[in-house]
Formats: sequence, C-alpha cells, structure tokens
Amino acid sequence: MERILNSETPKHIGEKVRIAGWMTVRRDHGGIVFFDLRDRSGIIQVVSSSELAKDINNECVLEIKGEIKKRPDRMVNPELETGNVELKAEEIKIVSKAEVLPFDLVDMKMTLPSLLDWRPLTLRNKKIQAIFKVQEEIISSFRRTLSDLGFTEFQAPTLVPGATEGGSEVFHVDYFKYNAYLAQSPQFYKQILIGVFERVFTITRVYRAEPSVTTRHICEFVSLDAEMGFINSWEDLMDVCETILKNMVADLQKNRSKELAMYGNPDIQIGQKIPRLRISEIQEIIFKTKGRDNRGEMDLTPEDEKDICLWAKENHGSEAVFATHFPGRKRPFYTFPDPENPLETLSFDLLYKGLEVVTGGQRINEYKMLEDNIKKWGNKPKDFEFYLQAFKYGMPPEGGFAWGSERITKQILGLENIREATLFPRDMERIDQRLSILQPKKAKKPKK
Amino acid sequence: MERILNSETPKHIGEKVRIAGWMTVRRDHGGIVFFDLRDRSGIIQVVSSSELAKDINNECVLEIKGEIKKRPDRMVNPELETGNVELKAEEIKIVSKAEVLPFDLVDMKMTLPSLLDWRPLTLRNKKIQAIFKVQEEIISSFRRTLSDLGFTEFQAPTLVPGATEGGSEVFHVDYFKYNAYLAQSPQFYKQILIGVFERVFTITRVYRAEPSVTTRHICEFVSLDAEMGFINSWEDLMDVCETILKNMVADLQKNRSKELAMYGNPDIQIGQKIPRLRISEIQEIIFKTKGRDNRGEMDLTPEDEKDICLWAKENHGSEAVFATHFPGRKRPFYTFPDPENPLETLSFDLLYKGLEVVTGGQRINEYKMLEDNIKKWGNKPKDFEFYLQAFKYGMPPEGGFAWGSERITKQILGLENIREATLFPRDMERIDQRLSILQPKKAKKPKK
Repeated sequence: MERILNSETPKHIGEKVRIAGWMTVRRDHGGIVFFDLRDRSGIIQVVSSSELAKDINNECVLEIKGEIKKRPDRMVNPELETGNVELKAEEIKIVSKAEVLPFDLVDMKMTLPSLLDWRPLTLRNKKIQAIFKVQEEIISSFRRTLSDLGFTEFQAPTLVPGATEGGSEVFHVDYFKYNAYLAQSPQFYKQILIGVFERVFTITRVYRAEPSVTTRHICEFVSLDAEMGFINSWEDLMDVCETILKNMVADLQKNRSKELAMYGNPDIQIGQKIPRLRISEIQEIIFKTKGRDNRGEMDLTPEDEKDICLWAKENHGSEAVFATHFPGRKRPFYTFPDPENPLETLSFDLLYKGLEVVTGGQRINEYKMLEDNIKKWGNKPKDFEFYLQAFKYGMPPEGGFAWGSERITKQILGLENIREATLFPRDMERIDQRLSILQPKKAKKPKK
Repeated sequence: MERILNSETPKHIGEKVRIAGWMTVRRDHGGIVFFDLRDRSGIIQVVSSSELAKDINNECVLEIKGEIKKRPDRMVNPELETGNVELKAEEIKIVSKAEVLPFDLVDMKMTLPSLLDWRPLTLRNKKIQAIFKVQEEIISSFRRTLSDLGFTEFQAPTLVPGATEGGSEVFHVDYFKYNAYLAQSPQFYKQILIGVFERVFTITRVYRAEPSVTTRHICEFVSLDAEMGFINSWEDLMDVCETILKNMVADLQKNRSKELAMYGNPDIQIGQKIPRLRISEIQEIIFKTKGRDNRGEMDLTPEDEKDICLWAKENHGSEAVFATHFPGRKRPFYTFPDPENPLETLSFDLLYKGLEVVTGGQRINEYKMLEDNIKKWGNKPKDFEFYLQAFKYGMPPEGGFAWGSERITKQILGLENIREATLFPRDMERIDQRLSILQPKKAKKPKK
C-alpha cells in the first residue's frame, strides 16, 4: 500500500490508507489513545487502542495503517486542514524510537540560547518550521522577480584573496601557503559580471566577524545580491527593490498564508509607493516630530530608523522607507558621488518596520574615477587589479543592492532576534553548540 | 526613447530605435564601418560612417540611435538571431571607453592560466558566457524537479565547528577565540532537517583543501545537495537522480539550445533506464572487455570510470551509469551497510561520460548504530552531539545525494577542465589572480 500524505486524507474518507510521520501530542483516555501524527504536509488525528499504541511516545516515527473516518460535526477542528477526519489505526509500526523529550515540543517555553542548543529538535515545532517555509518563499520570490526582469543567476565565490572591502570585520582562512578571507559581500563579482550578462543576481553566503552581540547581526548570513547595468538613473534600482518587495508580499500571502496565520497574519503595509527620503530630510522629520536633534549626523540611529518607519506608516501608509543620499564617508569606495553634492552619494537603504533590510546604490563605472577613489580610501589599486579589469574595458552606468534574507524574514514575521530567522545561526559564541563548551580557548598567538 | 534589446530588433524593421551594448568585431571598409554590438540578448550588426564611429574600439560601451533595416536576402546571416536585420547608425554615444584589448576577445586562443588571469574580460566571450547560462539552467532544473517532488529548499551554513567528516582536506578559519572550518558538505544539516521537512535540498558552497592539481578538482564548488526521508529502499534515491538528470537534459534542450549549439550540440544519451551496476560487476566487465584486472579493488580507477560509461553507451544506450555497493571503508561513517553483505554499503556514484558527477546513498538512521559507527571510525560521539540529537528523537529511513554543479556542466558540454565550468575557480595556486604574485608566502608556523 503506497503511503499517502496527511494533507491527502480528507480525500480518502472510508478508505484504508497508510500514513507515516512523527507522533506528537499523545492523550490517553481510558483504553483509547488520541494522538497527532505530523508529516511534511501537516497533522492528522489518530485514534488507537492503548494496546496498539503502547511504548510509543512523542517524536517516535510511526507507520500507520487504518481507515479514514469523517469526524462528527461537533468534533471538527477548524484549525486543522485535516480537521474533519481522523484515522482509526489498525496497525502501528514503530519505524524509529524516540527517547523521552527533554521539553514539550508543542508548547515550547524556552530561552533563545536553549532553543538554539536544541536546534535539531526545536526546529520540528510547527511554528518554528513555518519561519523557514516563509524564508524559502522570500528567496524564491526574489529569484522569480529578477529572472522575469532578465537577470542571470550566478554562483558567487566566498573565498576571497584580500580583506579589501570593509576592514577589520573579516574572517581569515589558512589557504595552503597563503592567506585567504571569507567574502563580506559578492560585490566585486557581481560588478565584473555586468560586463558579461548586464543584469545578475546571486543568493550567497557572506560573513562578518561582528565582535558584538546584537539582535540584528550574525556572522554568516544569506545575502540576496543583485546588480544591474545600463540604468537610466539610480532611481531604477529603488524601483526594482520596490517591485521585489511587492512581489514578496503577494507571494507570501498567496503561498504561505498558513504560515503567516501562525504569526498573527502580520499586516504588511507598503502603500502605493515607498517614500524616498534623504538622510537629512529624515533627521529633519525626527527633529520636528520627536524633538531629537540628530541633524548633521552621518548616519541614522537605530531609534531614527524605527521612528521614520512609524512616521511613514502614519503619513504614507507604508512601513517601508528608502533612506537616501548617505554621506560618502559612510559608504564603500565604489559608491557613486552625487553630482549635485559630492559629499553625498547616490546610495540608499531600505528600512522596513524600523530595520535596514536592503542596502544599495549606483556604483562608479568610470575606471579613472574608481582608481582615484581606491587611493582616496587608503588602498592600493594594485590589490584591485582583477576587479579593475572590468572597468578598464567598458562598463555601463550600473548599480545594485543586497537584501539580508534573515532580516527581511525577521521583520515580516515580527521576530525579536535575527537568530530566530536563521536555521543554524553563527555568532561570536556559537556554531551549532556553544563554542566554549565544545572547544578549549585557543592559546593567544605570539606577537610578531 | 526607451532602449530596446538586440533580440527585439527584427520586430522593428523600418523604425527608429535606441540600442546599447559593447562594440565587438569592428570592420572598416572605406568610409563605412561595420561592427557587432553585443548586449545581454545577443548581437546585431551596426552600419555606421567612419566619422560617427571614430575613436571607438572593441569593448567600448555604446548607445546607438538609428533605423532597423532589413538585410537583402543574400546578406542574411543565418547564424545570428538578428541575422536578417542591421541597424543604420544615426547617432553613437560612447558611454564608456575601453582600452585597447590585450587579445582578440572573439577568436580567443589562450592557455587556461591566461584565460583565468583575464577572467573579467574573457567571460565576455560568447562561447564562455554560454557555459554559465547552461550552468544556471542546470541548477534551476535541479531546483524545479525537487520542488515539484515536495522538497523544501534550505540555506546550509558553511562555517562548521569541527573538521569531522573527511579528515585532512579541510580549511581552517580563525573564528574569534575559537577554531572553525569550512564545510566539506552540508551533510549533517540536511540530515537534521529530515526530522523537520522530510525532504530537503540546498544549493550551497563546499570546500576541499585539495593538495593536488587535477582537471576534476577545485577548492570551492557549488554542491546541489538533497536528502529524502521515508524512502522505501535506497533505490528510490537513484530513481530521483534519474528524474533529475532526465529533466536537466530536457530543460537544457528546451531553454539553452543556442548555447548547446555553440558546443556542437552535444549528444546527451541516457537511455530508457540508467544501468545500475555493482563495483564488483563493473570490475568484472572491465576485466572481460579490456583485460584490466582490478577485481577486488576497493574503488574504481579513473580509467574504469571512463570505460564503463563507454561500455554502457554501447550496450544500454546510456552514457550514464550508477556504480553501486561501495565498500564501507571507502564511505563516511553514516553510510548504511548492506544487510546482505556488511562489508559493502547501500551507496552509489553516478558516473556520466566517464566522471563521477553525483555521490549518494542510504544513511544510518538508527541512533545506536550511528553512535557505534562514529566510534568505529575513530571519532568521539561527544563531538557529534548536535547532529546526534536528530537521531535520538525519531528518524525515518533516509538517504540523499550531492551533485557537483561544475562537474555536470563540464561533462555535458565536453569541457576539458573543471576550471572552465567555474566562474572564478579557486585552487591551490589561485584565487582570482595567482596567489604567488599577489601575496608573499606565509612564514612557516612554529611547531607546537
């Protein structure tokens, strides 16, 4: 007998079927046992005799044969897709035994560190699973939108030869007789590929040796990176970001409504058009509405980011805001200066519900100007020779952006900590288990 | 005037249009200049006066306005999608100048090292571009097939806490006060997720510190990894691989016929069913047909791999072969032993045109047996505690496989070296540029 999925059971009322999955929530009532069986499609209630269900505890893997029965109307569970049926077990085979669980997997009350210590198990919780079905859809949606716009997907390398882009927050790798580093972004590669495919994107791992513990930073994350040539203006880049976000929201509502419902159907308001506000304008608005005078500061504070999103929600029906024209000193060397004000750049962040989820901008595409900027930033053009090839031999006006997949997941679902939106988060204290438990600390390296 | 793509020009005969792209192949004939303009959609011939085209060399980025003219029948170029039209230039704007090219980008004759030294430029060659359009389709096809079969896509981490799976060929990372390593495979994570989603796949980077230079090994590659729970038998895994390969071939023929044509329309023969042969059977066949006696050896030699694929092509109309039942000692600790012969395992490689492109097998899903094997392989279960959680609490029969995306690309197109099928290959001598040029050798570490 072929196994059927739990979600298919309502189509088999009155038939004998075989189902398989994990036991969850066992309830004994006299000689009868009720339990839920979880498989990849959902949950179904199983009714069994005590005899058939003996020695079976939660998370045991079972194969069950029996008949699908319609539940009496008063017993229908409207919260379950299979709520109008149950399976009357005739044969139960224990496929894999489970030890007694160290905590309740359905009604979990745990601190975040414990949740992560027990990640292989806690991921089985339906509400936690849902986070990663939502994330899968976010990434698929990003891919679909860009493919439809003629972007080519490429695979970015993650081992790089120099710690060139961002300075100190980079991981070092022992690479044979040489030094290598983990990429902080696929920036150089996506720019090089403008000369090849005009429009490219990559879904790739990036690494930041963040020496602090916050709710928004992790050391390895999945970046959704795109770059676009022959732009008419840097506003094209924000237009594409807007399309991506709108499609993401629509795709989630269409394909992940069940998962969104578990998070209280978060209200995802973007409005007709996402407001585009200069840093200086945002600071002015914050000053006027909140009295906080950050005017003239180089960057927005986390508080500013939260408040401007609330302001935009109230005034523009959008919880997303483009913050634009970051000062040159806050952006990497390849950022295009604003021709109207060379101290500012044609760059933007997309803030969503108070957090930066995208960063982007137009790039310098002119070889000489790029070389000059490399020097101005205190670097040697020689170290960028490979990258610079692309600009020596014809590069159109171009720009791009990077989405943090964990951040956007966190913001859409209203999670408190980015670690919740990361399957296996890496931070300064943890890779899977806590490193302090797993490894002795390294001896300090002798100073050279 | 909106820019149109070159591929759209045949629909605009007699109209004024604006196109943009890179100049390639300039031919001067008296006062008239013919050149090709390359954009992401293809090539179109442009006719211009010498005056308009002065100071323009190959790879300059141009924006051109002019009229689309039908070519006289005898001038039609059947090899070009836009071969029946040309653009008569009325206005040419140099968007970005290119230096004089160091070599001919259309008719390239270069050694592989030079090809890679100049990668940002050589990738612009149409035939080289095509490799990565084919690779994009291979990866998309893999994703589509598995999504259709109910697999969930996840993002595997690449920083791991221990050099546990494969021993010495692992890269070390300085991770704050601790040691970390680059993942050799997402194996543990995909197995953990069987307990969560039953069927999963990931498209991820894996790393091998290969201390030798061959045509089949690179240090960072893109692995297409899948894992499947509730299998009826390990044969299910080969069935899925067969579906993946058949779909890949069909998708390439449908969506990448232009690119395949550049590689002589490679004949991709799989036959009705891919033969499944034990290592011992293969060795017997090789002995009988070639006289080479490798019977009793633990593994196939590269020569065996080539010859068995040729044999299968002749005898089964398939250039692909599953080699099965590898000896336990040649496989990792988690491989399921064959119940009928505990020295062999329920594992397989998929050989395609003489090269291993997939490796897979059933895994041990029973906690105690897995723990015992960890010890047998000389490791400590304590170091695998996180992974083992998944098996302590219910794990169905399961298995999986990993496809090397560069290897399958190489084999399908008949490339000689895996580096050709890698956008930015990393090997012991190179990350982008040759490391010996970029960096001084490291001082030897003092022995501890």
